[in-house]
Amino acid sequence: MNIRLLAGVSCAACVCAIGAWLVQSPAALAQEKKAEAKSWVEFTADGKAKQPVGYRKWVYIGTPLTPNDMNDGEAAFPEFHNVYMDPDSFAHVEKTGEYRDGTVLVKELVSVGSKEQTSGKGYFQGDFIGLEVSVKDSKRFPNEPGNWAYFSFGHKYPLKAEAPLTATASCNSCHEKNATNFVFSDVYPVLGSVLKAKK
Amino acid sequence: MNIRLLAGVSCAACVCAIGAWLVQSPAALAQEKKAEAKSWVEFTADGKAKQPVGYRKWVYIGTPLTPNDMNDGEAAFPEFHNVYMDPDSFAHVEKTGEYRDGTVLVKELVSVGSKEQTSGKGYFQGDFIGLEVSVKDSKRFPNEPGNWAYFSFGHKYPLKAEAPLTATASCNSCHEKNATNFVFSDVYPVLGSVLKAKK
Repeated sequence: MNIRLLAGVSCAACVCAIGAWLVQSPAALAQEKKAEAKSWVEFTADGKAKQPVGYRKWVYIGTPLTPNDMNDGEAAFPEFHNVYMDPDSFAHVEKTGEYRDGTVLVKELVSVGSKEQTSGKGYFQGDFIGLEVSVKDSKRFPNEPGNWAYFSFGHKYPLKAEAPLTATASCNSCHEKNATNFVFSDVYPVLGSVLKAKK
Repeated sequence: MNIRLLAGVSCAACVCAIGAWLVQSPAALAQEKKAEAKSWVEFTADGKAKQPVGYRKWVYIGTPLTPNDMNDGEAAFPEFHNVYMDPDSFAHVEKTGEYRDGTVLVKELVSVGSKEQTSGKGYFQGDFIGLEVSVKDSKRFPNEPGNWAYFSFGHKYPLKAEAPLTATASCNSCHEKNATNFVFSDVYPVLGSVLKAKK
């Protein structure tokens, strides 16, 4: 073999090897990201949900308000509830109009901090007071209606680090009966507007 | 020069060139991203703000509610206002506790859709009805107090595609007088909790 050719070939091989690494690297990263994206909520060995992490940077979908002072001091979900969906599942809704297996919704409860500010009279958010989560997972919850499971980390701080599955009659039954596909999307305009666009 | 050495050198040069490209590429990408990140709101040649894009995936910071029915039918910011901060500026607040040059806040106005649902009596979000934006930028707004500028795309749909700078007395003056560093962070718990943690 001509020496110059050899040099060219060895250089080309070199480029190929680096090229292969380049091609493989983003793919590996994507796979890593996908695996990571599956774990928006983690579970203990005995099936308790662990408190989700970083949910305040998920996709915000809406804030219903059922203030205690409009519910005889005993609202089922006291005060504001800021609701988020994990970004992978929100992207799936945007694409398909459906809730994928693995969808996680977080409901963060926030107190009414005040009822008057410079902007007018109303309800203004105060402190974080509670956290609840729902997860749709056909493998983990084959017996729950719609495969949706509900978990409460408490309605006052400090929150529980882990929460057991709530009895079907406590949450799921109401969602099944009163919501659309188990999600109260009618009162979550960010989610609702995406669902309407997919109809 | 020995031919084998020449081959080695040319291959090494090849690797170096690819290496340099590899090193340069993420940097270039980062720079591109940075440049992109600067444009959370774009402006027309004559200084109007264009409607921001994709803000419903920015960081949600809180939802004050000043319903018309609690303000003689004429709330300054009717109904719910869902407030977001661009993610780069939120990350900057997390790191420093400060609002950086280029900070953008979006206030999306949402109607009260209903006042009773299965979860209780209260206020429930209906339709998107308005959009306002504030931008801190010392280069673009050297004469505005705190370098904060305010823009309104309207309080009913269809919204304006572009919005002129609001007079200082209309928005800025109230923010300067009544908010903390021009931002009503006391009623935005997601932002407020980060600021408290940095004190």
